[in-house]
Amino acid sequence: MSQVISNTTNAATHKHLKLGLFGFGCVGQGLYHVLNETHGIKADIKKICVKNRDKQRILESAIFTYDKNDILQDPEIDVVVELIDDAKAAFEIVKAALQNGKHVVTANKRMIAENLEELYHLQLKHNRSVLYEGSVCGSIPILRNLEEYYDNDLITSIEGIFNGSTNYILTKVFEEKKSYTEALKGAQDLGFAESDPSLDVKAFDPKFKLTIAIAHTFGVFLKPEEIINIGIQKISPVDLKYARDHGLTIKLIARAYKLNGKIFGFVAPQFVPADHMLASVRNEYNAVLVEGAFAEKQVFIGKGAGGYPTGSAVLSDISALSYDYRYEYKKFAQGDGLPFSNDAQVDVIVSFPQGASVSSKEFENFKGGYQGNGYQYMTGSARLEKIKEWNDRDDVSVILAPELNLVSLDKSKKELQYA
Amino acid sequence: MSQVISNTTNAATHKHLKLGLFGFGCVGQGLYHVLNETHGIKADIKKICVKNRDKQRILESAIFTYDKNDILQDPEIDVVVELIDDAKAAFEIVKAALQNGKHVVTANKRMIAENLEELYHLQLKHNRSVLYEGSVCGSIPILRNLEEYYDNDLITSIEGIFNGSTNYILTKVFEEKKSYTEALKGAQDLGFAESDPSLDVKAFDPKFKLTIAIAHTFGVFLKPEEIINIGIQKISPVDLKYARDHGLTIKLIARAYKLNGKIFGFVAPQFVPADHMLASVRNEYNAVLVEGAFAEKQVFIGKGAGGYPTGSAVLSDISALSYDYRYEYKKFAQGDGLPFSNDAQVDVIVSFPQGASVSSKEFENFKGGYQGNGYQYMTGSARLEKIKEWNDRDDVSVILAPELNLVSLDKSKKELQYA
Repeated sequence: MSQVISNTTNAATHKHLKLGLFGFGCVGQGLYHVLNETHGIKADIKKICVKNRDKQRILESAIFTYDKNDILQDPEIDVVVELIDDAKAAFEIVKAALQNGKHVVTANKRMIAENLEELYHLQLKHNRSVLYEGSVCGSIPILRNLEEYYDNDLITSIEGIFNGSTNYILTKVFEEKKSYTEALKGAQDLGFAESDPSLDVKAFDPKFKLTIAIAHTFGVFLKPEEIINIGIQKISPVDLKYARDHGLTIKLIARAYKLNGKIFGFVAPQFVPADHMLASVRNEYNAVLVEGAFAEKQVFIGKGAGGYPTGSAVLSDISALSYDYRYEYKKFAQGDGLPFSNDAQVDVIVSFPQGASVSSKEFENFKGGYQGNGYQYMTGSARLEKIKEWNDRDDVSVILAPELNLVSLDKSKKELQYA
Repeated sequence: MSQVISNTTNAATHKHLKLGLFGFGCVGQGLYHVLNETHGIKADIKKICVKNRDKQRILESAIFTYDKNDILQDPEIDVVVELIDDAKAAFEIVKAALQNGKHVVTANKRMIAENLEELYHLQLKHNRSVLYEGSVCGSIPILRNLEEYYDNDLITSIEGIFNGSTNYILTKVFEEKKSYTEALKGAQDLGFAESDPSLDVKAFDPKFKLTIAIAHTFGVFLKPEEIINIGIQKISPVDLKYARDHGLTIKLIARAYKLNGKIFGFVAPQFVPADHMLASVRNEYNAVLVEGAFAEKQVFIGKGAGGYPTGSAVLSDISALSYDYRYEYKKFAQGDGLPFSNDAQVDVIVSFPQGASVSSKEFENFKGGYQGNGYQYMTGSARLEKIKEWNDRDDVSVILAPELNLVSLDKSKKELQYA
């Protein structure tokens, strides 16, 4: 992010970069346009590797190749920009790029989340940088700020809306009273939702992002499968009614926090008071709330999806490479090394069709229930592992209670603490 | 913000800094505690220069001095941290520090705003860095993000709540129905408002911050007196009633935007819809909304006042100096050099006691009025210079209409554009 202080002009200290792109979908094209329209950055796309030979392209054919080695083995190319879907193939490209002495910029959250510790070591081994700001909450510069700005703060929690397509769906369901199916189709038509929507609606996508955020917030490398994710696909009519009756909305919240020397983290839908700041984050917007000992509460809001917003994050990474930026993984280097745990108890509202068997004994602390119109719900505290168990059943919907962990910006209301 | 990529450990590339502090008030003490409680940064306070010999101090007396040269002429001290009130004295300290080869960290918005162009040239001349993240919106890392993350974006506007004490006052007036005087006293008791509250309530403080933000957003160096500032001190009972009747609240908004090849900027109270995201920014919180061509709409929210939040911003600057960070003033270097103009027309609601003479002819486009209970208001568009003229009268209160320039995060509502 900086240059060495010197009397030379900025121009002299910034490198002119040659880029090789993998993939030319929504984000790739967004990057191409952003790069063309801005004049501050010195970087050119030399080659773009794509898979589909038959697709109509917006650029002349000479820039495209179907052979990855045209990029990986071109000594003129400094930076590989990896923007393909397939996480396994992406990781192979990243490894080969680093081995060939190239820096990498990528927005592939799944690939990063699944290989983060190895990516850290590969960067050290090959003395090259892998940047991936676009992978977490699109245009929001959360990783850069965690690395650089909060490098000395003692962060206690990070939470927020980490997935644009589910937030779009929930917004439409609540505000325009659309059906879930209708809202999902709308998100897909706008290009926010993946063609396989289960990564979004079952909350795998925000879990990948949370995995990455936890590494930069708490210095802990996790595998995504260690983190429990509850999706929005089973939200029931009784849940919607409960929300409307209580002045609440539902948001899919990713969160991680430090408590009693352990790190906790999970993704789950949650009831949010309609006047809470997170309720005003609508459609494809994402939000990240960071709480630290010194900066206290901070919020970042921005678009979490779309070619331009993500393309702008990718461009910012490319720009940072022009002055040799790399993540330092400072929290990891400082080495608190706190263990990750799923041994948490949270307040939930569980709903299911009447007759389905959920017992009040399954709660740690059962508060009460209600039934009518063929549906039933129960409220109380339950262990995270129990919530996962409920979530694995097709007939049960689990939503976190509004009391849980929501950082409030309103000092006049009770400040919600981690229970 | 970065280190040169190398195989050496981070420890080797980061300098150990010796600090000399000027001032040991709220922010200075906040910094001291933050520095003591964090373990990632290698910096020590060697000396603290204070004015008042009789004040009880929380540290041993040996660290204090009353002679500025004990810091300025100590070759061991790398960084001068300037945290005093007096803008003129502060600027002298900063100049002397740079001349003596020291970097500077400061949070003195008035001093920076009044001398920004000279500070820019002094940094180049002496090849030293002046960092001042804490000067704009306390803990919000807005300058760093404008410089580093949005360095290639084409920003069209920046706006938000730039003053914590007036936001605290307005929150109390609206939510707890306190009187203005009562709310002001509350803000002073909590240390948010300056002892001379006119800098806050007459909107000079947010104007200083806007001056600084404009330099880093649009690359234009202004003097604060070029920018029109309307305060909250004349908000009348009829304004409060108007707000409540229309589902609005009032916020003091600083904004700057690019339109038709010119830069516009001003600070004024504005009616804000109660469900707008800015309405949920309460008490001493600040918010900054940035809109760019690529990242699109982004929001940063955080505490704008208080020793710890500002101290954490100061610490982040100190940390950045340990790897030779300096502002590049990239937007200035890119040199669009757009002219600043006050030749704008904005929608306002003007209120005054019945009998006071405001004529509908003073509007460019008069919409209508209302009178009752001894008060009168008029709505319509007016030139910025006319608004300034009204504001100079004791008996007239001017508040911007909610339609003006408010970036909306809600795509389902009409997106408000710059008129």
